[in-house]
Amino acid sequence: MEIAIIMGSISDREVADDVAKVLKDFGVGYSMHVISAHRSPEKLAQLLDQEEDLGTKVYIAMAGKAAHLAGVIAGKTVKPVIGLPIKSSLMGGLDSLLSTVQMPSGVPVATVAVNGGKNAGLLALQILALSDEDLNKKLRNYKLDMAQDVEAMDAKLKED
Amino acid sequence: MEIAIIMGSISDREVADDVAKVLKDFGVGYSMHVISAHRSPEKLAQLLDQEEDLGTKVYIAMAGKAAHLAGVIAGKTVKPVIGLPIKSSLMGGLDSLLSTVQMPSGVPVATVAVNGGKNAGLLALQILALSDEDLNKKLRNYKLDMAQDVEAMDAKLKED
Amino acid sequence: MEIAIIMGSISDREVADDVAKVLKDFGVGYSMHVISAHRSPEKLAQLLDQEEDLGTKVYIAMAGKAAHLAGVIAGKTVKPVIGLPIKSSLMGGLDSLLSTVQMPSGVPVATVAVNGGKNAGLLALQILALSDEDLNKKLRNYKLDMAQDVEAMDAKLKED
Amino acid sequence: MEIAIIMGSISDREVADDVAKVLKDFGVGYSMHVISAHRSPEKLAQLLDQEEDLGTKVYIAMAGKAAHLAGVIAGKTVKPVIGLPIKSSLMGGLDSLLSTVQMPSGVPVATVAVNGGKNAGLLALQILALSDEDLNKKLRNYKLDMAQDVEAMDAKLKED
Amino acid sequence: MEIAIIMGSISDREVADDVAKVLKDFGVGYSMHVISAHRSPEKLAQLLDQEEDLGTKVYIAMAGKAAHLAGVIAGKTVKPVIGLPIKSSLMGGLDSLLSTVQMPSGVPVATVAVNGGKNAGLLALQILALSDEDLNKKLRNYKLDMAQDVEAMDAKLKED
Amino acid sequence: MEIAIIMGSISDREVADDVAKVLKDFGVGYSMHVISAHRSPEKLAQLLDQEEDLGTKVYIAMAGKAAHLAGVIAGKTVKPVIGLPIKSSLMGGLDSLLSTVQMPSGVPVATVAVNGGKNAGLLALQILALSDEDLNKKLRNYKLDMAQDVEAMDAKLKED
Amino acid sequence: MEIAIIMGSISDREVADDVAKVLKDFGVGYSMHVISAHRSPEKLAQLLDQEEDLGTKVYIAMAGKAAHLAGVIAGKTVKPVIGLPIKSSLMGGLDSLLSTVQMPSGVPVATVAVNGGKNAGLLALQILALSDEDLNKKLRNYKLDMAQDVEAMDAKLKED
Amino acid sequence: MEIAIIMGSISDREVADDVAKVLKDFGVGYSMHVISAHRSPEKLAQLLDQEEDLGTKVYIAMAGKAAHLAGVIAGKTVKPVIGLPIKSSLMGGLDSLLSTVQMPSGVPVATVAVNGGKNAGLLALQILALSDEDLNKKLRNYKLDMAQDVEAMDAKLKED
Repeated sequence: MEIAIIMGSISDREVADDVAKVLKDFGVGYSMHVISAHRSPEKLAQLLDQEEDLGTKVYIAMAGKAAHLAGVIAGKTVKPVIGLPIKSSLMGGLDSLLSTVQMPSGVPVATVAVNGGKNAGLLALQILALSDEDLNKKLRNYKLDMAQDVEAMDAKLKED
Repeated sequence: MEIAIIMGSISDREVADDVAKVLKDFGVGYSMHVISAHRSPEKLAQLLDQEEDLGTKVYIAMAGKAAHLAGVIAGKTVKPVIGLPIKSSLMGGLDSLLSTVQMPSGVPVATVAVNGGKNAGLLALQILALSDEDLNKKLRNYKLDMAQDVEAMDAKLKED
Repeated sequence: MEIAIIMGSISDREVADDVAKVLKDFGVGYSMHVISAHRSPEKLAQLLDQEEDLGTKVYIAMAGKAAHLAGVIAGKTVKPVIGLPIKSSLMGGLDSLLSTVQMPSGVPVATVAVNGGKNAGLLALQILALSDEDLNKKLRNYKLDMAQDVEAMDAKLKED
Repeated sequence: MEIAIIMGSISDREVADDVAKVLKDFGVGYSMHVISAHRSPEKLAQLLDQEEDLGTKVYIAMAGKAAHLAGVIAGKTVKPVIGLPIKSSLMGGLDSLLSTVQMPSGVPVATVAVNGGKNAGLLALQILALSDEDLNKKLRNYKLDMAQDVEAMDAKLKED
Repeated sequence: MEIAIIMGSISDREVADDVAKVLKDFGVGYSMHVISAHRSPEKLAQLLDQEEDLGTKVYIAMAGKAAHLAGVIAGKTVKPVIGLPIKSSLMGGLDSLLSTVQMPSGVPVATVAVNGGKNAGLLALQILALSDEDLNKKLRNYKLDMAQDVEAMDAKLKED
Repeated sequence: MEIAIIMGSISDREVADDVAKVLKDFGVGYSMHVISAHRSPEKLAQLLDQEEDLGTKVYIAMAGKAAHLAGVIAGKTVKPVIGLPIKSSLMGGLDSLLSTVQMPSGVPVATVAVNGGKNAGLLALQILALSDEDLNKKLRNYKLDMAQDVEAMDAKLKED
Repeated sequence: MEIAIIMGSISDREVADDVAKVLKDFGVGYSMHVISAHRSPEKLAQLLDQEEDLGTKVYIAMAGKAAHLAGVIAGKTVKPVIGLPIKSSLMGGLDSLLSTVQMPSGVPVATVAVNGGKNAGLLALQILALSDEDLNKKLRNYKLDMAQDVEAMDAKLKED
Repeated sequence: MEIAIIMGSISDREVADDVAKVLKDFGVGYSMHVISAHRSPEKLAQLLDQEEDLGTKVYIAMAGKAAHLAGVIAGKTVKPVIGLPIKSSLMGGLDSLLSTVQMPSGVPVATVAVNGGKNAGLLALQILALSDEDLNKKLRNYKLDMAQDVEAMDAKLKED
């Protein structure tokens, strides 16, 4: 598959489904995994070896609190790693966000908003679309649709 | 050029040079611009039209405080946009970080650490390397070199 | 209309209605729009051109998270732009507040409290009242009424 | 004078001068005062009475830490009050910002960025320009100049 | 009365009742008022004059968000002013806390925890007890009772 | 002595001297101690016993980071305890402030601003002045002088 | 008993039970107490004397807000003290966390995550396991089980 | 060696030396390493295997920003792992602190204060002292000395 979605805990499932939905809508294949950087580090290493062999192009890693998952993956691959911080009870997820985005020099993680599952998926699609003209066209159409949706809401507001 | 580096203010030059250096080291072409989302919005629109025509693949946008530059670019293109928050005096740049990363659904910005110029460059390279085997090899070598540098520091520490 | 209320998403409707209510109470005309700085930037540009032609005097822009709407409008007009940050789940809207208020030099946004819809409306009225003696009088009466309301609550408290 | 600049402490002088400079550049008259909401409340009340009599149109109040000055003024006038939070040592002025912007319903303060003296001045000018076509024209020219300055910086960058 | 409890809004009533309860339990007289520093400043000035004449010894002022009430009172009296920040939706009341505690040099506010109504009352009692041996004895007994309550909870825990 | 100033570390000396200076200026006696709640808890217990015997009326406790000193003292006395948080490198002292002010129900600490030495002293004086008419008069004069100082600064500003 | 669990308030019971559960699961003895550093300091001193005599090896102290309990214990013993910050309403427990972890030099508190009861227990077990080969083996098995649990969740995810 | 000190970057050397100094003062052996969780993950895995074989009892891991080092080590060992967050420019190291302490259930990290090198060392010693009576005695003496140092400072203060 082109994209691997990895969640640190099954409790992140709902946000993972947001990611999956957008990928499905665009017809792009993905695999989905529950693997913890802290609780199953060996398994994570195995999965990454396997995904690298399969030619996975983009990783989307989601975790909360001291969210190390994206960073650990980014330490092992040169493929783009998208970090998706999950909302926690400490300041609404500031811990998750900072643990994901504040990576040291040399090992970037492409971080999106807290609980921003849809955007994590779209970012992955934008990356793949650089060498997939068909996907690029779909993204441009999506952008137009999104603008039209806003216009429709605006029209509806004015009808009220 | 494949990458467009856009800074919101000339005062971001030093971090922009960190981005440029890593791109140069990998032999990847880039253009560099000073354009403000707020002070020269028209010019920004023109530049984006022009860059789209030129086939620019990745945008790197850096700005501080209420950092809207990356978000505004992401609103106009379906190419990946890397957001690079610049350190400010308010909580060390938390304003820049939140303004860059907390994007609404539908318009992702791939955010790196505050002042993380080198990582913004590396992330762009990782994206391009998906369809450039030579660049991919260079990135893997870079990763090995980085590990060796750490080992060299470790060796030096033990000599002291 | 003298005032344009622009919300970044239909989910901001409730706060927008707080703004509208106070304008209606003072008999001042307004238009209301759903337009996203990120999802429908073209439409936003069109609306602003149109509003400028119509002689709109004050803009009230509300958005949450990486709230760029007010800033983008302020980049295109020299009319006063009131920024109304919408509560988010990250620290109760600190992201929205900082993204709205921390504008770069040259492009001010007059920011009110998070979810402060009524105050956004009153600030617009205060601005218009500078050249509308009747409105000024209403605002002074409103201030007196407000003081009396507090006194009434104080009286009621003492009766209990 | 049309604008009254009030600083809570003489230590805010430097930021007050940023405000004054932009007003002078646009040829708009202003008065400048050091008055503390906490240390000289009586004097503040007198000044406000006097300014109201003189027909002052916009107040710009700057203060740091538990910054109450703008709020106290807003409690006494229906003229627009611009709050300018001054940088403090606690989280770079987050205390000043929150104390200024988080006003209760009924009493708005138009808040600009921490230490945003220039923007406080420009916002006052935008408000006055609603009934001063000449000032409006100057502001539009200023906006064009600002865009040209950014373009000049961009040109200079490309020469380097 | 020896103590004046002043709330900025009737919505602070519940916390005010926590203050009142502890004062009643210790048999100390108090008056209670709803007066806003921003919405009824004149009334506040009148009340303070009146309380000063009545010989009020301690003020307890509670307010939320940009909580100026305690500070404004402290600007007008040399009696101890206890500031009681009320929980808000922004970071759980950090705005209320900072607006209350970060007072400028020369005008102290004795700040207690966010929503710490009982402690505000106890602090007032501790201050009065300095010249009231009977009250001092009650406070020492209260401290002993409190320790016994904890011991009782500990005993109960061990029974479970 | 009427007031005991206790600092958690000799590095807090400078702020302690701010406290002492204001007490000296008002002619009120004080003792000053370096005692750590964590490093010399026994000594702290002894000192408190001794101070209670001596009839100390107000405690001023200053500490930084996980600032427990004021809270520990408040756990042992029913005299008013003023907490003076010392600036630290974490968010400018937010840790010190929260550790001092967020006391549990039953044990209040009267907290002043971070590094607010002068205000800690003044608050102690305000408390003592409740039963010392002479001190009360001095405080009222101090308030008048403070207002005049602000007016003098205002006058000087206008001369420039 | 080898471990003493001390909660500052009976309201922390639920998190204390998380600690107790993990200790019970590993068959390690513990005592559990409700003792407040502020409300029953004498009792705390007695308990600590008693626990030291009994040879308690590790303390687990949990408290919220201005959480001094762990620090006060650490001031009196040279045994490892684990600090367990309890969630509060201020920024989700940032006050509890900072009050627990930011201890001054010389008096460490081993702090775990906010409401991290299970981890507090596990950390205590890891410490005891250094001289208990059987416990060490159990912990290694626990780690394997944990990895298998994650794998099971992963398998279940893939079945769906 | 009994203790392994691992720093994520050579720039953490100064704080690492604080750790080493206290260990040396107590005569406890340690090894010191520069290994990055992100830049040299393979090497980290090797080192941990090797340290486990050597019977290392306690790990002290220090890192800044998105500080994953301690967490990654804790994922691989059942020995106690002490996390030492290093000061960064974002809110004085709040990112480092949260990334270190907010670990998920099952994998504790014993976190000390930001830049608290000395305390990290002391905590390791306290853990080892549970089965080393001599070390325990030294720690108790250290505690007494520390108390005496504070008393000496107190005496010196009183001489001034």
